[in-house]
Amino acid sequence: MITLHETALSGNCYKVRLLCAVIGVPLRRVELDIDALKAGKTHTDEFLAMNPEGRVPVAELDDGRFLPESNAILAYLAERTPYLPEDRFDRAQVLRWLFWEQYSHEPYIAVVRAWRTYFGIPAGRESELPIREARGYAALDVLERTLARQQFLVAERYTIADIAIYAYTHVAHEGGFAMERYPAVAAWLARVAAQPGHVPIDA
Amino acid sequence: MITLHETALSGNCYKVRLLCAVIGVPLRRVELDIDALKAGKTHTDEFLAMNPEGRVPVAELDDGRFLPESNAILAYLAERTPYLPEDRFDRAQVLRWLFWEQYSHEPYIAVVRAWRTYFGIPAGRESELPIREARGYAALDVLERTLARQQFLVAERYTIADIAIYAYTHVAHEGGFAMERYPAVAAWLARVAAQPGHVPIDA
Repeated sequence: MITLHETALSGNCYKVRLLCAVIGVPLRRVELDIDALKAGKTHTDEFLAMNPEGRVPVAELDDGRFLPESNAILAYLAERTPYLPEDRFDRAQVLRWLFWEQYSHEPYIAVVRAWRTYFGIPAGRESELPIREARGYAALDVLERTLARQQFLVAERYTIADIAIYAYTHVAHEGGFAMERYPAVAAWLARVAAQPGHVPIDA
Repeated sequence: MITLHETALSGNCYKVRLLCAVIGVPLRRVELDIDALKAGKTHTDEFLAMNPEGRVPVAELDDGRFLPESNAILAYLAERTPYLPEDRFDRAQVLRWLFWEQYSHEPYIAVVRAWRTYFGIPAGRESELPIREARGYAALDVLERTLARQQFLVAERYTIADIAIYAYTHVAHEGGFAMERYPAVAAWLARVAAQPGHVPIDA
């Protein structure tokens, strides 16, 4: 059982819900809605005590300790499950994709989606949009080349690398990304959605 | 023994050199200098076969396999050393700081340094500078609040979380960041530099 401080629309939060559903970990959800986010409810003293960065998701463990950063939560929960391989190199490859997701994918795919669908482009930052779109396409290109040769990202099986990258890739069209250009990515998205225990982002 | 495809000026590459020095792993360095980077030498077919993202560092293992992403390389090399704790929650906290470094610190602290010291601000992206500076200071604020209460970032001992975040923090002044505002960070930087096996970025 963990308590997830989260926002339903966030792919970073969905990652954790998806892994919990897949591995059967009970989840209590504490929802911050978009109005709470806009009102800065993640920058109160109470929230900052959980995560000094002031962002969701934050996992609250049964013993009251807090763990922020979506991909660190995934690695914590997946420890000793098939979704985080035992093999040292395979584990490192999972981490490699998790870091890639946070550095080369999420700031472009997720942020463009958030701007286009939820928040609007922040005033004065309009010039960033084409750069973020181009880098989003570059990330999708990397995924397409990789998934044209393999069924899953690491060790030919479904791992938290797939879960982490699925979260924002499957809603990339909400950011205006032309996903019909990416047949191998589309086949992988369908493969992930067909895995046992799968739940949609709006569940 | 590992082979590191790298650039001397990059903090992401320095992280790996520093950990190797601390744990005594022999390192062969394959240097791409700044002119090679500017000429796109990380976007040749040969380099992209090592890392489809086209970035340094890439670690080449003795068996010829490649591992990109600086923080994944750290976790791989630190496995079964004191620099990556065994305890499940402490390990997750190390990963939490590694993800924080790549998402909330490096894109601001390292990029502003690179723009100011090495590459110049890319044409048309001048408006990003004040945003990246503000977020760099926000990251330094998080570090200062954390390190005012503890000696190291996780488990009260020197881990790869400290190594990863030290790499660009100790050269943040090259990006113009006013480090004199951060006494707890300064004390921690000195603490890290005093650890056994320490090597400077320009070694």
